[in-house]
Order: sequence, then C-alpha cells, then structure tokens
Amino acid sequence: MKALIIEAIGAPLNFRDWDDPEPGPGEVVVGLKAAALNHRDLFITQGLYPGIKTPGILGSDGAGLLDGREVVLAPGKNWGTDARVQSTGYEILGMPGLGTFAGKIAVPHAAVHPKPGHLSMTEAAALPLAGLTAYRALFTQGAFQKGHKVLVTGGGGGVALFCLQFAVAGGGEVWVTSGDDEKIDRCKGLGAQGGVNYRETDWHKGLLKAAGEFDLIIDGAGGAGFGNLLRLAKPGGRISVYGGTQGMVPNFSPQLLFWKQLTICGSTMGNDAEFADMLKLVATHRIVPVIDQVFALSAGNEALKRMDQGAQFGKIVLSIP
Amino acid sequence: MKALIIEAIGAPLNFRDWDDPEPGPGEVVVGLKAAALNHRDLFITQGLYPGIKTPGILGSDGAGLLDGREVVLAPGKNWGTDARVQSTGYEILGMPGLGTFAGKIAVPHAAVHPKPGHLSMTEAAALPLAGLTAYRALFTQGAFQKGHKVLVTGGGGGVALFCLQFAVAGGGEVWVTSGDDEKIDRCKGLGAQGGVNYRETDWHKGLLKAAGEFDLIIDGAGGAGFGNLLRLAKPGGRISVYGGTQGMVPNFSPQLLFWKQLTICGSTMGNDAEFADMLKLVATHRIVPVIDQVFALSAGNEALKRMDQGAQFGKIVLSIP
Repeated sequence: MKALIIEAIGAPLNFRDWDDPEPGPGEVVVGLKAAALNHRDLFITQGLYPGIKTPGILGSDGAGLLDGREVVLAPGKNWGTDARVQSTGYEILGMPGLGTFAGKIAVPHAAVHPKPGHLSMTEAAALPLAGLTAYRALFTQGAFQKGHKVLVTGGGGGVALFCLQFAVAGGGEVWVTSGDDEKIDRCKGLGAQGGVNYRETDWHKGLLKAAGEFDLIIDGAGGAGFGNLLRLAKPGGRISVYGGTQGMVPNFSPQLLFWKQLTICGSTMGNDAEFADMLKLVATHRIVPVIDQVFALSAGNEALKRMDQGAQFGKIVLSIP
Repeated sequence: MKALIIEAIGAPLNFRDWDDPEPGPGEVVVGLKAAALNHRDLFITQGLYPGIKTPGILGSDGAGLLDGREVVLAPGKNWGTDARVQSTGYEILGMPGLGTFAGKIAVPHAAVHPKPGHLSMTEAAALPLAGLTAYRALFTQGAFQKGHKVLVTGGGGGVALFCLQFAVAGGGEVWVTSGDDEKIDRCKGLGAQGGVNYRETDWHKGLLKAAGEFDLIIDGAGGAGFGNLLRLAKPGGRISVYGGTQGMVPNFSPQLLFWKQLTICGSTMGNDAEFADMLKLVATHRIVPVIDQVFALSAGNEALKRMDQGAQFGKIVLSIP
C-alpha cells in the first residue's frame, strides 16, 4: 500500500510504499478512503510527544471500507475497565502503533463502526478523535444539559467546533471566544449566540455584559486566560478542560473556586461507549463536521503546514485514493 | 448581657454590656454557654473582609440553652433554594449580623439543633462552621466513599481535623500534611495512617512513595503547593478545595488535569441539610471535636492572639459564664 511515513522527527513526511498490514488476533483490515489531522500528529512530527517511534504512520482518524461496508474507526483502544479514566495500556491510533495516513489499517474488530449515513467519507473521517473528545468533555465531564448557557473557548478548533455543534443540537445557548472575528461569525453561522475576541482588553468583561455567567465552560487552552474563566462561570457552574495549548495557568484563584462552588474537570479522549453515543448523536441530529480543507494523502505535508499556521476553521482532511 | 464587641477594625475587642437581642419574626433567643473562633473572626478584626460593620459582635459558632434544652446553632442562614450553591442572601453568624461572642443571640428557630448528647458545651461549640465546611468538602463535593485513600492538607486546622475525623469514621485511609511534625503525630493519634512535612524539599515525592496516589485530596491552602496535589491525585481522582490561605495558585497544569481526568471542586460552608447530616454523623460515630484551648469570653483577645500565632491544634473555644 501507499502511506505517508514519518521517517524521522523534524523531517517532512514521506509518501511511499509500505507493507500491507497483517491483522492480529481479533483484528480486521480496513481499506481507508479518508483520514483527518489532529494537533497530536503535528506535535509528533515536531518531536513534542513521548515515545515516538520511527519509521511509522501517523493519523488517528479514519473512514473507509470493510467488506464493502462504509465504516468509521474508533480512534483509541484498550481504554480499560474504569469508565472514569483510561488505563495505562490505552493507545491512540497513529503512535506508537500504525495510523490512518495510509491505504489500509489493521484495527480491533470492535473499533469498526458503521459510518453515519448522512456523511461523506471525508466528513466521517473528520469525526473520530475530535468528536469523541468533545462528547466526553461536554456530556460526561461537563454534565451538559438542555438549556445550559455554554462558553466554548478557541472557537475555530476541531474539538471546540464539535462542542459548539453538539451543545446547539442539545438545546444549549452557546457562546464562543476566538482570536479572529471572522471565526466568531462562522461560529454564529453554526448556531452560536455570539462571541468575543480574546485579543480585546478585558474581553471577559465584555462577554459577561453580553451573555451573563455560564453554566458550563469548555476550554482547550489553559494559560493566562484561564483565570478569567472562573469569573465567567455561574456560581455552582462547571469548567471542563480538554487541552492546554497555552500551557501552565499562572493565576488560578482558590477563592473564586470555593466561594462560587465551582467544579473544574479534566477530560481527554473517551471510552468505547462514549464513541458509540457520539456517533448516535451525530446521526440523530444529522450533524455535519466542519471541514476546513481536503488534501490528497500525498500532499500530507501541505496539510500539516496548514495546521501549523493555525488559520484553519474545522478539520483538515486527507483523501485517500 | 455581656458581649465581646468589635468597636473598630484593628482595635482589641472590648468586653462590655450590650443590649439583649430582640427576636425577629421566626426567631428565638438562645442563651450561649460556649462559642468558638474561626479564621473569619480574626480576618474581620484585621479588616480583611468585605462589608464590616462596627460596633458589632463576632462569632459564628455557638452552643447553649433554649428553654432548658441543650442546643447547638447552625452557623449560616438564607442558603437559598439551590443545594449546589449559596444564594447572595446567605449570611454567616457574626457579620454582618450579630454573632456568638455574647451571652445571648437571636437566631432563626430552624437554626437551633439538639446538642449531640456525648459532647460538652465547649465541644459542641467547636463543631458548627468547621464541621459543616468539612462535611460538604468531604462528602458532597469530595464524593468521599468508604475505602478511599484521602489526603488532608494543613493537618492542624479546624476544618482539616474534622475532615480527618469524618473520613476515618467513614472507613477511609487518611494521610495528612503539616508544617509541624508534632501535629502530624497528633493526627496519627486521631487515626491518620501517616503524614509528611510540607517544609521538606520534594515532600510530594516522599508522600507518593509512602502512600501512593490519592482518591481524594482536601485542601484549604492553594498557593504554590497546589500544583503538587495534581501529581498526588490518582487518575480519575478528586481535589476538594475549601480555602486558599496561601493565595493564588501560580502553577496549575491543564495537562495533568485532563490527562488524569481529575475533578477539582470548590466547597464553602454548607446548606441546612448538610448541617443536620453532619450532626448525625458526629452523634453516630461519637466524634469529639479536637479542642486546642478554652478561654473565658472576657479573654477573647488572648484567644484571637493564639489563632494569629497559628500554633493551635484544633479549635479555640470561648467559655461563656
């Protein structure tokens, strides 16, 4: 098969031949038609990930064909027996094992799910890891309920957009933050009530004025902006954190936390039941993932460059011939 | 009646005559036999509290007599209708209203509870605010369960000691931190499995080695030490925060939070149902509050000085003639 190979950290990916995968016990081989990028893939090419093995094949998101049936793949395996938290054996496709930036992949049979009928292959490939992460952060850890006022930070990111779409579908009033006014407008087009540009001074005060306090805040950034999220939360409210692209939080106030009786919960990926529930939600509400751009698998380096520039809105997808 | 009056911020309290309280609608007048100090009282004398009115009477904890029956008082009123969080009308006895450092107090009838039979008046007076705060932080917000491994930071404080006693009574394995080895030993005497002095370099590593990771951590400190609590928590574990004596947390890691699927919840005081449940727990397990020292009401300034020095272990109580 053809695949996009990471030959060494820091080197461009190499589109070349690779041996067809052999299925292990309980595994099947799926012919891939589309894959999608996650920041994880970019971080691995930059060496910013533990336990990188080369040569290898990146990619956690895939959709394709198994015995003529259209399927989408669960991005993780070996979650373990505790629904609350992944086991130490948990793995995401595409490192340390082989991923979806290839013509074929061997996965556990249980990881293969029917593709939601209303989605194309490229749309379905945009769904797995970001959709799963959003589902757990919003519903399981975030305890989202119909009627909640929800703030989603970083409105252009893959997980953030799924949080927005899922919460709108579930009857929430959703607001976003972004560093880009155009992205805020596009979020409104997806059902957001409004948004605020976090590059503005005292952006949180403007948002409080426009929207009031939030039942639930979903954050993937951390960093210095996180301190304001405790001010934006309603007393008794919840902050669900699935990422930390802005790094360490330097200004976390225990006083705001306890006086407002807030709950802050971490969330990463999701278990098998959450993946199945996420697919059901997407099918029920006919949710269509937002796709930024589709590249050919052979143009994977251009796709990574697009992600590295950070200007995308939605998922960057690779089409596999 | 005689009372200990705060005449002005920064001035010593003044033991003098004050008009007997008149009960408002739904209120009764309780004759006080003992009161106890909380850090809140000290902070108010130092001006470190919003909305201080002088002259007034401090004190949130009280036990005494109503129509010949021995009673203990709920420390808060007007929690409101949302069990998750106090209303804006919530008040704690002793500011802005009149408190328990007096011969008598007018309180809502619903705030009067039978004194647990196994406790003396001074012991019962040690219970209300710290016991309530500990109860909510441990059970409601902390979701403590039998068999949990629990870390309680700042092992000598009033709330911390109740957390220790309640968790031991509930079948937990409890560890403590303190800046004082003698306090750690005394915590062991109360049922703690062990403890570590947080003045030691890399104290969290020593604790991890001795105890392993924790299901639940109860913290009243915040500050720079808080970052280590995320390292000490078990994946899927919980950190319950009822105070922030060490101030802002400068090193909060979103990565640890989400990767370990941790929950951090704020907790302050508690509602009426929690106060009743706390009294039941104390009665069932015949828990006796730890008392550091008993002063006469007229010696209230010495009692405050003792608290300000921070050497106490357990509650500082005022006996009322």
